Amino acid sequence: MSEAPSELTRLKRRHDRGKYDEESVHGILDAMPICNVGYVFNGKPVVTPTLQWREGRHIYWHGSSASRMLENCDGADVCVSVSIIDSFVMARSAFNHSCNYRSVMAFGRAFKVTDPAEKEMRLKAFTNTLWPGRWETLRAATPKELKATTVLGLSLEECSAKVRSGPPGDDEEDYGHPIWAGLIPIRMEVLPPTDDPRLLPGMTPPAHIRNFRLG
Amino acid sequence: MSEAPSELTRLKRRHDRGKYDEESVHGILDAMPICNVGYVFNGKPVVTPTLQWREGRHIYWHGSSASRMLENCDGADVCVSVSIIDSFVMARSAFNHSCNYRSVMAFGRAFKVTDPAEKEMRLKAFTNTLWPGRWETLRAATPKELKATTVLGLSLEECSAKVRSGPPGDDEEDYGHPIWAGLIPIRMEVLPPTDDPRLLPGMTPPAHIRNFRLG
Repeated sequence: MSEAPSELTRLKRRHDRGKYDEESVHGILDAMPICNVGYVFNGKPVVTPTLQWREGRHIYWHGSSASRMLENCDGADVCVSVSIIDSFVMARSAFNHSCNYRSVMAFGRAFKVTDPAEKEMRLKAFTNTLWPGRWETLRAATPKELKATTVLGLSLEECSAKVRSGPPGDDEEDYGHPIWAGLIPIRMEVLPPTDDPRLLPGMTPPAHIRNFRLG
Repeated sequence: MSEAPSELTRLKRRHDRGKYDEESVHGILDAMPICNVGYVFNGKPVVTPTLQWREGRHIYWHGSSASRMLENCDGADVCVSVSIIDSFVMARSAFNHSCNYRSVMAFGRAFKVTDPAEKEMRLKAFTNTLWPGRWETLRAATPKELKATTVLGLSLEECSAKVRSGPPGDDEEDYGHPIWAGLIPIRMEVLPPTDDPRLLPGMTPPAHIRNFRLG
């Protein structure tokens, strides 16, 4: 992954922002499950938001076996995009406004996880990556449910990360302009969990719920 | 927009979650500038995160004129995806876990804003939509900067919103299972602004910075 950026992953511009090492790519993927999957449908691009998880050098996503996205991605070229916006970069000219962000684009041919036992293992990994130990507490998945669920995978062979950080980069002659400049940081905030109205009496959120963090 | 969902915008499944009215679509687009733009490059899908803004029945996005994304989207079919994740929906079975979200997918052929005066007007609208009044305080854009910036637009003719809200929908027989269920709400948090290290002495963040909100 770090050796040879492809035509799709090599940054055409702002090469200073490109990162191809595994640590950078994995760190971003692990920090943000929300992703956007792009595929081609009847010659036109379609972008669908979903959740991804990483196991080693693969990412996976899942959904209903009846989903158009999953049906069309299986065996097809896809692009999975993950981005974390860290701040708005407020400069002294409109032109130098920017964002600080960490993003990954992964390209390749998606494949379906067909073996039911492997599929269940992947879904367990997904659940327990986000909420450690939750899978074991749940009502077990039925064969019918597993059949109704499609899990797709993508090798992280062709991917890159792009990162911007730091203060605004204004033109040297603009620094004397009397306008406030700096960063407006943003982040995903996880709020306290709220009980299902039909929760059994006396149940409280377990540690894997209380400790959940994002980004 | 509300009359006739197309092959791309009609929800294939979960029709209960689909919304085609202008108010729903505009509300989501206005609440979340972060978007993902999908396009086809050499027959393969590419998904690029960027910021969008809405003016009437169009959305726009912009960037360097040298950007591969902008260059390839001009005159081409694109899909712009905007999503706001409101909560993780924690159910009693893995199968019934879900997310609450508000998302929009907009399809069509992107066009370039070619007239320099219109381009400047669009960029001003973008800046002032997010930070009211900021444009007028900035060092003015130069003709060279405008030339180096591409603004693309997309008509909101072919688009749809998809929304899930509410508690988990568990199988009736699972409600007696002794597992915590409910929502983990998440949202974009805007943190206090931080000054550019090279800020002129005595400058403080104006109201349009202090009052900035997202989502």
